[in-house]
Amino acid sequence: TLHNKLHEIPGMNRLHPHETEEPHGVESPCLCFMKIHATFPMLTKYADIMKLKMPLIKGNENLQDDELLRYFPNPFRVNRKLLPPLKEEFTSFFSQARIDQFHITDQDKFFSPAQRSQIVWECLSRIKYHETNPTKFGIQRLLGNDTYTAAFPLHDGPITRVSADQQKPSNLRSILHDQWGRFGKWFKIQPIDYVKLYFGERIAFYFAFLEFYTAMLIPAALVGLGCFIYGAASLYQDIPTSEICFDRDVGNITMCPLCDKWCPFWRVKDSCALSRATYLFDNSATVFFSTFMAFWAMLFFELWQRRQSVVAWNFDTLDALEQYEPVRPELARRVMDQRINTVTNTLEPYVPRWKKWMHGLLSLSVVSFMMFVVLAAVFGTVVYRMLVVVALYATSTTRQSFASQYATYITAITSAFLNLIVILILEKIYYRVAKWLTNMECPRSQTEYEKSLTWKYYIFEFVNCYSSLVYVAFFKGRIPPGYPGVKGWFNIPIDQCDQAGCIIELCIQLAVILLGKQIYSIIREAVFPLLSNWWSSQDLIKFFTHVRHFYRWEKDLQLRPFPPLSMFKEYSRMVLQFGFITTFGAAFPLAPLFALLCNLFEIRFDAYKILVIYRRPISQIAKNIGAWFEILQHLAQFAVVSNAFVIAFTSEFVPKMVYLLAFSPTRTMKGYTAWSLSAYKVSDFPEDIKPSNFGEGFNSTTICYYRGTRNGPEYSDELKYTYSMIFWHILAARLAMVLVVEHFILITTRIIAYMIPDLPSYLQARVLRQNFLAKEAFYESESKRISLVETQSDGTQITPSATAASLYPSIPSTSAAVSVAADPESM
Amino acid sequence: TLHNKLHEIPGMNRLHPHETEEPHGVESPCLCFMKIHATFPMLTKYADIMKLKMPLIKGNENLQDDELLRYFPNPFRVNRKLLPPLKEEFTSFFSQARIDQFHITDQDKFFSPAQRSQIVWECLSRIKYHETNPTKFGIQRLLGNDTYTAAFPLHDGPITRVSADQQKPSNLRSILHDQWGRFGKWFKIQPIDYVKLYFGERIAFYFAFLEFYTAMLIPAALVGLGCFIYGAASLYQDIPTSEICFDRDVGNITMCPLCDKWCPFWRVKDSCALSRATYLFDNSATVFFSTFMAFWAMLFFELWQRRQSVVAWNFDTLDALEQYEPVRPELARRVMDQRINTVTNTLEPYVPRWKKWMHGLLSLSVVSFMMFVVLAAVFGTVVYRMLVVVALYATSTTRQSFASQYATYITAITSAFLNLIVILILEKIYYRVAKWLTNMECPRSQTEYEKSLTWKYYIFEFVNCYSSLVYVAFFKGRIPPGYPGVKGWFNIPIDQCDQAGCIIELCIQLAVILLGKQIYSIIREAVFPLLSNWWSSQDLIKFFTHVRHFYRWEKDLQLRPFPPLSMFKEYSRMVLQFGFITTFGAAFPLAPLFALLCNLFEIRFDAYKILVIYRRPISQIAKNIGAWFEILQHLAQFAVVSNAFVIAFTSEFVPKMVYLLAFSPTRTMKGYTAWSLSAYKVSDFPEDIKPSNFGEGFNSTTICYYRGTRNGPEYSDELKYTYSMIFWHILAARLAMVLVVEHFILITTRIIAYMIPDLPSYLQARVLRQNFLAKEAFYESESKRISLVETQSDGTQITPSATAASLYPSIPSTSAAVSVAADPESM
Repeated sequence: TLHNKLHEIPGMNRLHPHETEEPHGVESPCLCFMKIHATFPMLTKYADIMKLKMPLIKGNENLQDDELLRYFPNPFRVNRKLLPPLKEEFTSFFSQARIDQFHITDQDKFFSPAQRSQIVWECLSRIKYHETNPTKFGIQRLLGNDTYTAAFPLHDGPITRVSADQQKPSNLRSILHDQWGRFGKWFKIQPIDYVKLYFGERIAFYFAFLEFYTAMLIPAALVGLGCFIYGAASLYQDIPTSEICFDRDVGNITMCPLCDKWCPFWRVKDSCALSRATYLFDNSATVFFSTFMAFWAMLFFELWQRRQSVVAWNFDTLDALEQYEPVRPELARRVMDQRINTVTNTLEPYVPRWKKWMHGLLSLSVVSFMMFVVLAAVFGTVVYRMLVVVALYATSTTRQSFASQYATYITAITSAFLNLIVILILEKIYYRVAKWLTNMECPRSQTEYEKSLTWKYYIFEFVNCYSSLVYVAFFKGRIPPGYPGVKGWFNIPIDQCDQAGCIIELCIQLAVILLGKQIYSIIREAVFPLLSNWWSSQDLIKFFTHVRHFYRWEKDLQLRPFPPLSMFKEYSRMVLQFGFITTFGAAFPLAPLFALLCNLFEIRFDAYKILVIYRRPISQIAKNIGAWFEILQHLAQFAVVSNAFVIAFTSEFVPKMVYLLAFSPTRTMKGYTAWSLSAYKVSDFPEDIKPSNFGEGFNSTTICYYRGTRNGPEYSDELKYTYSMIFWHILAARLAMVLVVEHFILITTRIIAYMIPDLPSYLQARVLRQNFLAKEAFYESESKRISLVETQSDGTQITPSATAASLYPSIPSTSAAVSVAADPESM
Repeated sequence: TLHNKLHEIPGMNRLHPHETEEPHGVESPCLCFMKIHATFPMLTKYADIMKLKMPLIKGNENLQDDELLRYFPNPFRVNRKLLPPLKEEFTSFFSQARIDQFHITDQDKFFSPAQRSQIVWECLSRIKYHETNPTKFGIQRLLGNDTYTAAFPLHDGPITRVSADQQKPSNLRSILHDQWGRFGKWFKIQPIDYVKLYFGERIAFYFAFLEFYTAMLIPAALVGLGCFIYGAASLYQDIPTSEICFDRDVGNITMCPLCDKWCPFWRVKDSCALSRATYLFDNSATVFFSTFMAFWAMLFFELWQRRQSVVAWNFDTLDALEQYEPVRPELARRVMDQRINTVTNTLEPYVPRWKKWMHGLLSLSVVSFMMFVVLAAVFGTVVYRMLVVVALYATSTTRQSFASQYATYITAITSAFLNLIVILILEKIYYRVAKWLTNMECPRSQTEYEKSLTWKYYIFEFVNCYSSLVYVAFFKGRIPPGYPGVKGWFNIPIDQCDQAGCIIELCIQLAVILLGKQIYSIIREAVFPLLSNWWSSQDLIKFFTHVRHFYRWEKDLQLRPFPPLSMFKEYSRMVLQFGFITTFGAAFPLAPLFALLCNLFEIRFDAYKILVIYRRPISQIAKNIGAWFEILQHLAQFAVVSNAFVIAFTSEFVPKMVYLLAFSPTRTMKGYTAWSLSAYKVSDFPEDIKPSNFGEGFNSTTICYYRGTRNGPEYSDELKYTYSMIFWHILAARLAMVLVVEHFILITTRIIAYMIPDLPSYLQARVLRQNFLAKEAFYESESKRISLVETQSDGTQITPSATAASLYPSIPSTSAAVSVAADPESM
């Protein structure tokens, strides 16, 4: 039925190159292709409706380019011969009535490939294929009920190798592949303008964001690496670790068992290796790195805000508004109510407010429910961890055995993997739920749709990805508070950190989740599609290989369909990665470096994917990165709070400082290890917790020690094992640290934000100038319209008044020119 | 010489009603008046240059007013017969060339009185009175060198009483005085639109702000009053105060002397009255009130942001830009360099960037220096306070004597007055310095000038007004920490709070400064000008009273000149008041009530002043309240931090909670007073501090107590009198309280801000619609201009293309109308 309709779109031709190709076997698909290509009048008609911005013959302003650096050789730049810099042109909303004023040298090249695919898709999305049923329209519906297998724009042509001496190929896909979509070009600045020409603004924006993010990662990676090297270099100078490993008195302190009943006593020196590993990630450089990352996150946001407007200006979408966007076809199909869009003054379908509220309420409850599921899963891994730790410690009567020695590592790594699996599964389930919820909400435009989906997805993912990290960083062993001889809530044993601190576990957790997610996505998006493409091409080759060459459309059909929300997934991965490295980066200074390496790969791989693996996507307008922008802002602010708390509570920095400044008799760190331990009387152990086997050489132990700041057994029964003065002193210092770090970072970034305007000054001047001219022209045309109405009714002519005098030289712009137009005598 | 020049301004007439009035005595002034009035062509010419927005004959949009309430009787509304609501009109930048399209029914009334005075002033400011010297221009310079005594717009006429049965008087000044400028109308909503008509946008904006602020004060005043009543009502139920006053054991605890050497011992019950007074201002309602005020401040800012856009929309200045404003005449006189304004494309003088930086650096250093002066002054009052307290306590050997009993009050009140005087003097000096610095900077426009001055002034005033309060609230008795037998830095005795806490002193300090400043300003701005006006009228009457009636200009000359930065001072007073009640409001819950009463008076008094006492000011454009807007934002954020710290550190709330939750054996407040005291051994007093007279009945005292949480004399020498566990516990609780309150308020207000958009939705739709139309018209005219240029060069005519088709009903707007205009054949 669509066939007949397509004939009726004026100017739309079709091509059926092999409409009834004979099937070769029983299981062969019946492939019928229909190539739609829009004629120029068709394109202009829709460009008018869709308010596309097209170049004018000549702008009235000098759009000069100050970029002097352009003329210097630059190894990071793409080949200028293949991809010459595009000229900045003066554009305007396209209008058929004023078609002569647009810069059309070649009708075939006036609209960019991206624009053409956008127009044809818009047309296909709205075409009715049933005379009476108003909901039966659009290619999406026909694809949904399998009338058509696929609908996609064709790629520019096959990818041919570009050699140095070869002539410039006419095929933009090949050039982009050669200059942009190969790993060999990993160090090149991307030709974003050409990406926009080929794929449209939305996809180009993603690559612009990715490039900016990757560039910003370079300083973070360097600082992180520096901090790690500092930690490694100063490892043997650190007094507390040396005391644990080498000091005879400190090393031989008897420590209380690490679990109830089944664990033996042990000596401080047994945790030497773990203390060393912890020091690598928790030293004075960590405090610096943590503060740096919080700053970096805030600065990233500020600078991206600026960069975003520059990119939008270059794409000519800075003034695009959601209200200009066409309504989603799904909305038109599902909603019959119509009202006037107050901005463009056109009738369009809309969802009443109370329905929106109802859907919002539903979404809220579903998201809340899913978050409870996540928290339950985190609780599950906590239980797993406790069981495994006890099992490992209990395997041996000393702490020197392998299982006991590496219990922390084994538990942390396995539970992190468990967490990772849970995260990935929940992510997959939730993604479907979020899409279902968003579809039900019927958002107005594609932008609004993605915004709604993004928020829903992000709130969940935030809890999903970060809750286990938050637990390890801030709650583990603290809530409920644990010390020997005590049980937690509901009589459950307490999940305690190792004697050396929680930061090593946080580090393992972070590294596993961060890298695990990255590797999983690479497998899912690289290996799997490549294999599947290869497989489906095999499938086809079986049928056609001896018959003839492939047509372009056949080759493109073999490619994977471009998922409609692909960009959403890419952004979500990037933004979550940003969150990982900024909020808990302190625990793992190498995280930015790994992220940088991953992203250098990611840029080229995404480019390769979109050029080679996928069918060509349909172009869309974009003026920014959508809701991710606000999410970045929230993440940056969360990073400030989180880093302040990590410095104060997870790191050992504050207790060390308190010891150094207030308690150390020698004003050095000497004695810190002993100071940080509290005593416990073995006879105070309840029967069901008391170690069944004291361990070798511990039979005569009466006092054991544990990491904590509580009163010893010498206190009265009321005060025994309650928090000591040192605890409250350290707590006050920790809280003060949080306050100081937070206020310091927030005030400094506020000042920085004040100094970095959101728009670069040259752009601000241009935007203001354009607005000024627009206002002037508007008033001009407005009053002219009125006067024309008057003139026609009076039958009299307008006499031009005296020309305006001016104190300053008057504006050599529209006002003069249009006043000529208003005077018909002068022509 | 100005005479001759004025003739040359085309269309500008002058009237010399009594150019050479004969002086009556030797000391009589030679009064020569020159009445300048601009003809209509003159006005239109300058309105064109100044880009005034004037009403068009008919707008294309329905500017409907949804305000249904308008038709209900409303006691708060001004008389509708005298001041009918103004119609919303569609305006545009005035242009002489399109004069026919403007809605001119009466040439005398087309421009509002405010606009006419603005135009004439603009003209006078730029007129050259010397042929060759380019710096000799402008009335300001002639006023400066006393060529003219004064230049002012005339008021509308004399103020006549409006009686109920009387016909509507033609004189807007009388109507405004009757309906707006009288104390009898204190409850009426102001006729802001008419104020704008008479005085211009800048002054109307001030009154709109004042009205909004006063309205917002009502809930704050009610809550504050409620909190105060709660405190008074629960005074006798409070356990700690009852213990101090009535409990035999607690009341008779021996307290350590309040000053070194000269003060005697005393009993806890002696501070009963002070403890009661403190309880009035520091009870559980204080915590609520403090949080409420922080919220209120944030909400105030959010709502004002919204209100401001509505007012600007009503004034039709929402899209006014600083770049549209004319350059200040002072800049044109002092700077010869010129460059192009990138927005309006006109040549104008400018100050090079390096000069701006130099001036900025200078300003910074001067401001810093002045701030050090302030801090020195605060330190001075601290010293004063210590001396007075010691003197008062030392007058008697018991604490029951009057001087000793009220020592705290006496010291606090006198030192607060001292502070007030210092604040007022420094304010005056600094105001001159700031003006001098700003003049030197040569800002571009009047808006920029006031912005620069505002920031300079505010930063200083912030330190000037609040530093003594900050000292009392957070530092007094804490830095350096004081307890018996210890001296502060440099051997200076320590400025301690009373046993009952610092909050009462903070309250006194706040009340004195807040009310003192208010009363001073009323005296300065009401009593003084009224007297001086009366005096100068007496002066004139002496000469002319028997000769004839006064002319209007003579009467106006008798009025006080309107100070050019008068609005700046009014704003600064209001914003500082806002700061006082929000940042330290917790200490004095009645502050919002006092502010409310003051402001109700202030509105009417300011109106009266501007209508009756002052000469008519020159009208100016304004789109917002300038830099004060950002300052309000900073103050609101500072209020959050400050209130969090006041709750945590100044108020006794946190120690009380810690006692109740962690230490109280009975889970009530019983025993709190004893718990909050620490012991000191009398024999540990150093000789120079030891009380010379133990006081009556204290001769056998060996242990005395003081308010503090330190270890007692039973500890080892090393730990004796150091902070106890309780201290650190309370400190941790205080810091946690700060964190919780801050994050709670900031997150909640962020959510509220998200829910309250900056523009009301109806206004947003209108603004977007206008921008959309503007963009369309711009592109239209832009491309038309190009095509005209082409047509003229080709000699061929444009053939209109086919009309645009559309999926949705097309836009019934400019596009159609203007395309007719583009086609000359159709006329």
